[in-house]
Amino acid sequence: ADLPPKPVRLGLCAACHGETGMAQIPGAPNLAAQRLDYLRKALKDYRDGTRDVPLMRAAIGPLSDAELDQLARWYSAQTLQPQAAAHP
Amino acid sequence: ADLPPKPVRLGLCAACHGETGMAQIPGAPNLAAQRLDYLRKALKDYRDGTRDVPLMRAAIGPLSDAELDQLARWYSAQTLQPQAAAHP
Repeated sequence: ADLPPKPVRLGLCAACHGETGMAQIPGAPNLAAQRLDYLRKALKDYRDGTRDVPLMRAAIGPLSDAELDQLARWYSAQTLQPQAAAHP
Repeated sequence: ADLPPKPVRLGLCAACHGETGMAQIPGAPNLAAQRLDYLRKALKDYRDGTRDVPLMRAAIGPLSDAELDQLARWYSAQTLQPQAAAHP
């Protein structure tokens, strides 16, 4: 699949979710290959507090709709890496 | 990887998330190969309302900790199917 351009804000996410959507820390979900519609809604819900996770709200609170959309597209387009998934 | 036994309650989840964790409807996330710790917490948060999604609360409200754990293990142990992931 063709990857979308790397989002400018990706560094904010990558510390916990990895650049390619493989979680880097306990408690963080993998995002690679997650459904685009789900990621878009999750990001909006985190930003507006509907989904109340202070860390996520702090991280993406300042981001625009367009920036959230870039992030959702980026992670949805990644490929889940089986070895990491098999040993969570 | 060796799969855990199929959870008795899997039918409840499969209508939206598929038996193997590939989402069947818009808005539902893929669960296949998701991190076990994340799935465990998500299920508990849905059940107690910390994560306020009425459909999920209705679905798993009556389930025991052991049943939630079986479901988390099942889905975490599945393999994400690339073709479905590429066309969310």
